[in-house]
Amino acid sequence: MEKTPLLTTSGKPIRCKAAICRKSGEALVIEEIEVAPPKAYEVRIKILCTSLCHTDPPRGVFPRIFGHESAGVVESVGQYVEEVKEGDRVVPVFLANCQECVDCKSEKSNMCTAFPFIQEPGMPRDRTSRFTDSNGEVVHNFFCGSTFVEYTVVDITQVVKITPEIAPDKACLLSCGVSTGLGAAWKVANVHKGSSVAIFGLGAVGLGVAQGAKLRGASKIIGVDLNPEKFEIGKKFGVTDFINPKDDEEKPINEVIREMTDGGADFCFECIGFASVMNDAFNSCRCGWGKTVILGMEMHGAPLCVNPYELAWGKSITGSLFGGIKPKSDIPSLAKSYLDKELYLDEIITHEVGFQDINKAFDLLIQGKSLRCIIWMDT
Amino acid sequence: MEKTPLLTTSGKPIRCKAAICRKSGEALVIEEIEVAPPKAYEVRIKILCTSLCHTDPPRGVFPRIFGHESAGVVESVGQYVEEVKEGDRVVPVFLANCQECVDCKSEKSNMCTAFPFIQEPGMPRDRTSRFTDSNGEVVHNFFCGSTFVEYTVVDITQVVKITPEIAPDKACLLSCGVSTGLGAAWKVANVHKGSSVAIFGLGAVGLGVAQGAKLRGASKIIGVDLNPEKFEIGKKFGVTDFINPKDDEEKPINEVIREMTDGGADFCFECIGFASVMNDAFNSCRCGWGKTVILGMEMHGAPLCVNPYELAWGKSITGSLFGGIKPKSDIPSLAKSYLDKELYLDEIITHEVGFQDINKAFDLLIQGKSLRCIIWMDT
Repeated sequence: MEKTPLLTTSGKPIRCKAAICRKSGEALVIEEIEVAPPKAYEVRIKILCTSLCHTDPPRGVFPRIFGHESAGVVESVGQYVEEVKEGDRVVPVFLANCQECVDCKSEKSNMCTAFPFIQEPGMPRDRTSRFTDSNGEVVHNFFCGSTFVEYTVVDITQVVKITPEIAPDKACLLSCGVSTGLGAAWKVANVHKGSSVAIFGLGAVGLGVAQGAKLRGASKIIGVDLNPEKFEIGKKFGVTDFINPKDDEEKPINEVIREMTDGGADFCFECIGFASVMNDAFNSCRCGWGKTVILGMEMHGAPLCVNPYELAWGKSITGSLFGGIKPKSDIPSLAKSYLDKELYLDEIITHEVGFQDINKAFDLLIQGKSLRCIIWMDT
Repeated sequence: MEKTPLLTTSGKPIRCKAAICRKSGEALVIEEIEVAPPKAYEVRIKILCTSLCHTDPPRGVFPRIFGHESAGVVESVGQYVEEVKEGDRVVPVFLANCQECVDCKSEKSNMCTAFPFIQEPGMPRDRTSRFTDSNGEVVHNFFCGSTFVEYTVVDITQVVKITPEIAPDKACLLSCGVSTGLGAAWKVANVHKGSSVAIFGLGAVGLGVAQGAKLRGASKIIGVDLNPEKFEIGKKFGVTDFINPKDDEEKPINEVIREMTDGGADFCFECIGFASVMNDAFNSCRCGWGKTVILGMEMHGAPLCVNPYELAWGKSITGSLFGGIKPKSDIPSLAKSYLDKELYLDEIITHEVGFQDINKAFDLLIQGKSLRCIIWMDT
């Protein structure tokens, strides 16, 4: 499947296919584009496969190439890049990890301050794009490293080298959602043996939380989802109890959870991105030490409003990007756990399509039919 | 000063003076009341001195005896009380500590679940009052243990025995505000060496936070207060930098603090009780690991609204009642620290009045002139 990159492409532009979004709300269009060679500290990567998550549906400036979950192989590197070389298997990630700033050096943070997370287009060092369309016009990138394209260019701070032993579709899953859930359970919440956990939203992130909580020995893992099919898949990842809020619309969800957990869950995770659900999660936590972890990105810019007295009773709210995962150290470690059969990843892949069918993957996502649909670039 | 209680009062009602609030907004009136003997698991305490904090200004049902910071001596005990005996020096506290429930047994919580904190009047076990006025009508109690009265009755779960070596006015301070600040810095935030701290509101609680942060080795302790006189007193407790928000109304306070701390403080404490200030505190914290601790009780029931994306960047919000202090173990330990000259308490006492002048103490508090005014019952 994987082709050895031609040495002759190094230092030259590459013409290849990209799924471009030309306008908000429109389907992606496969077009031929030109990908410039990597500048200093940059890496050009041949994408082997990509997937998509709820952060991807088109928004912002156009034309743009979206995508931020993928696995690939290094095609060429720019000046000063020594960490990876041509042919290395890599996972590009949306969060930088320079390994030198105060945050990267601290155990407490994964928010690189030298290369802060930015949602605006452009490469991190010069704020320009490496993509040009057939009319010679700029095509913008996304999270500093678009992946709905055969070749992409990413800053070395956002490239994680991984073992070729892990198949690219499994490696791809580690570059966003699943790692976010696992990291949140382990590094952000620090779920412990015997604890009770409520997870709002059983997508790839929520199932990652469930798996992380299970591996830590949580005794009760409550999954909350509007789709009753999620309970079966949830069980495989550790979910012990399931609540469909539609089943009893009379009773607030937080009351149901407080009853099930003798006063409230030790840990609640919001994995959807609705302020109202964040509030449900907060109200479902126990007093004394209940911790609410916000993982969903609020979809409508709504504020999270809580009763400060509830905080005074010893509750806390926290959040994280990428579940506190430090890409360069934690992703290789998660890949090893998968290869050691400690982690499940295969079950997250519910669909696979070829690159030309990428819009089908969006439909499956929006309809809530897929957990992750792998988009293979070569088929 | 301290009188040995007459043994003959044990088991009988005591007639004594109380500062009763008969109506919201009205001054307290010193009246003679009758204090019933302690029932099972209760302790009747002769109050030696009391002080007051912002939680005390009159509200709720009337007539009522307020007050929840005090020190006293046990006059008599009810059935089954073995932990203290007549003549013991004690501090009654507003938060129960049964020492047997899951929360009391956990290191993580100080929110006793067997005897949860209640703001409604009444004793914790039977919900009635031990106070009767001269017309034979019930006078309600406060936080299960009013202190603006010569004799009060408190459940044993809210009585802390302390060494008689500590003077009653200093012991009194440990029963609420100062301990809240110290506990919040140590047990809730876990302030560490070299960290930056911003404290909103330099009252007894805020100065407790400052002292706690200083003892932990924080390198920058920023005090924020509208009263410029607070900087001088703040310095004694460890405040290194002072901001008066009135000095530069153009620039938001969070911008000022972010500039002073190279991106935001590691820890921010709200010690006032305004949702808007809680928001300022949250916005003054750094991304990655910034922690906001809510200690003020919101005065108008306003919600705390934050941008959930700020949480995603690794910030957290927490709160606590009594700064995470477990009364029965932590207050004796703080008293020892004071006697060992590790803790400052004397400087918190800015005024002293006799019981008949209790309304003056309220005036001083409301005008922001006092840190703590000690009200001596015997003078």
